[in-house]
Amino acid sequence: MGKKIRVAVCGYGNLGRGVESEIAKNPDMELVAVFTRRKPAESLQTRSSVPVIHVDEALGWKDKVDVMILCGGSKDDLPEQGPLFAKSFNTVDSFDTHAKIPEYYAAIDEAAKSGNNISIISIGWDPGLFTLIKLYGGAFVPEGKTYAFWGKGVSLGHSEAIRTIEGVEGAVQYTIPVDSAMERVRNGENPELSTREKHKRICYVAVSPGVDKAVIEEKIKTMPYYFAEYDTTVYFVSQEELKADHAKAMHGGNVIHTGETGEGNKHVMEFSLKLDSNPEFTSSVLIAYARAAYRLSTGGESGARTILDIPPSLLAADDPEELRRKLL
Amino acid sequence: MGKKIRVAVCGYGNLGRGVESEIAKNPDMELVAVFTRRKPAESLQTRSSVPVIHVDEALGWKDKVDVMILCGGSKDDLPEQGPLFAKSFNTVDSFDTHAKIPEYYAAIDEAAKSGNNISIISIGWDPGLFTLIKLYGGAFVPEGKTYAFWGKGVSLGHSEAIRTIEGVEGAVQYTIPVDSAMERVRNGENPELSTREKHKRICYVAVSPGVDKAVIEEKIKTMPYYFAEYDTTVYFVSQEELKADHAKAMHGGNVIHTGETGEGNKHVMEFSLKLDSNPEFTSSVLIAYARAAYRLSTGGESGARTILDIPPSLLAADDPEELRRKLL
Repeated sequence: MGKKIRVAVCGYGNLGRGVESEIAKNPDMELVAVFTRRKPAESLQTRSSVPVIHVDEALGWKDKVDVMILCGGSKDDLPEQGPLFAKSFNTVDSFDTHAKIPEYYAAIDEAAKSGNNISIISIGWDPGLFTLIKLYGGAFVPEGKTYAFWGKGVSLGHSEAIRTIEGVEGAVQYTIPVDSAMERVRNGENPELSTREKHKRICYVAVSPGVDKAVIEEKIKTMPYYFAEYDTTVYFVSQEELKADHAKAMHGGNVIHTGETGEGNKHVMEFSLKLDSNPEFTSSVLIAYARAAYRLSTGGESGARTILDIPPSLLAADDPEELRRKLL
Repeated sequence: MGKKIRVAVCGYGNLGRGVESEIAKNPDMELVAVFTRRKPAESLQTRSSVPVIHVDEALGWKDKVDVMILCGGSKDDLPEQGPLFAKSFNTVDSFDTHAKIPEYYAAIDEAAKSGNNISIISIGWDPGLFTLIKLYGGAFVPEGKTYAFWGKGVSLGHSEAIRTIEGVEGAVQYTIPVDSAMERVRNGENPELSTREKHKRICYVAVSPGVDKAVIEEKIKTMPYYFAEYDTTVYFVSQEELKADHAKAMHGGNVIHTGETGEGNKHVMEFSLKLDSNPEFTSSVLIAYARAAYRLSTGGESGARTILDIPPSLLAADDPEELRRKLL
């Protein structure tokens, strides 16, 4: 094996820590730096011994980093950091604000081309692997329909929404797909499913002593957008139980494509994920696409890419000849 | 929409007929010819009105065909036709003799490069989609293991093997995955599974009058390689029942990748197919890869490719901008 691919992360939240823990499973890659906005940067404690650098000094690392994995959030961090870093580094990110992806793509594409870099955006499982499966489904069975279900899994946004209610000390919200709806889809019924029919929500909530639980429950269940459109169940538990039984950032989901060929021959393609740790899995996917970004860039390409543009073989550590022998 | 992609098929068995029936679902493509070895070619009755041409005249169609889908068998047809056609046409095939793929790839690569064509080999679902999922699994959760199960589905080879027994008038063999084995895999047990533990075989057999069924059953169950290593069940039925209830070329299967990240966080990626018509689905996959072959070729590329080399976006009729807006 030649020189390792030098990877840096920008941002040290769940995803950044995930890259730090998972990169060791990829012997052709190494983590060379963590970039942070924290001041002073050295005050950030990481689990590994890689240098921690302030983002303002990132440009000085241009020749020491092959791919920068941007681990910031889609709301505030990436719209600013994405185009900025794409000018100077090959980048990979998990930008997941679906409606804004075309606009984000355009900004990144311009920046990446100007710096002669590759930037792969919106990587993870949704958008990401689910997007791939939707594409394969539509391409292979064009006379068909694709459904996506999420869960069982923890929704950080919904958990946080519950915590904004006065008297709530802690909350974990699980999104649960409705099994009977998934069965109808698998049976090729092509159902029209309402929001309520596809998913239900289960909340584990710890409240302050003396608080009226019925009032809290009512506030949760009627919260617009987050819960009002769903069948929501609320269980009150202690903070201890919350920490003991509901600490895992588990998630997952199913993409199901059904359709027909010929004279009514039905086909079902289904892809499912069951993840104990949503951020660690997502980080691991980001690492594989960092490998692809490096290869595309060293092949002379530049500009923005999405998961739909990347030849699968670029994701694997093995070379194409080995892959053909092992996998085909 | 501009000019349609002009597709031809070589071979008019199940796959060729599948391409003929499914290409209409792809408004950017059209079937322009069926090539056959039959003499005279005109004696071949097709369902559509496309010209039927003898293979010996194929070279005359070089400028009238954008992609040739080779629908012959892997044992005798493709090893000869693949390299021959790759010299003059962009091709797609479903070569599925796993052990010989590296050698076949090399022959096709040389031929396709010499003719400045693109040839995508070994397309379908196994090898094919299952190969893709194995690659994604290994790339995203490197500390893991991938399992493949086949069925419930009809195995043509095993059905044929039963029919070679004297006194058998008809037979359909179903390969059935063992549910409990799949459950163990999904639970992340990483089991070592024997052939017998992964799949069982169920045979529906029609025999001639007066034949000793016990003898036939014993011959089936002890047939080396085909049945001896499996738990095999034999049901004797009438020819009529065989035709009424067991005529569909259904198939399918599951690829399951399980592994860990971090401190023992388990992940399960699973892909499954349930196909009413194995050949029609496979044909439909071949058509999507014909689109990719055309695009790669018009982009100036040449040589052999496998499913692992093809950017997913090339499979879809929509352009990349539409795909980003619709799918991401």
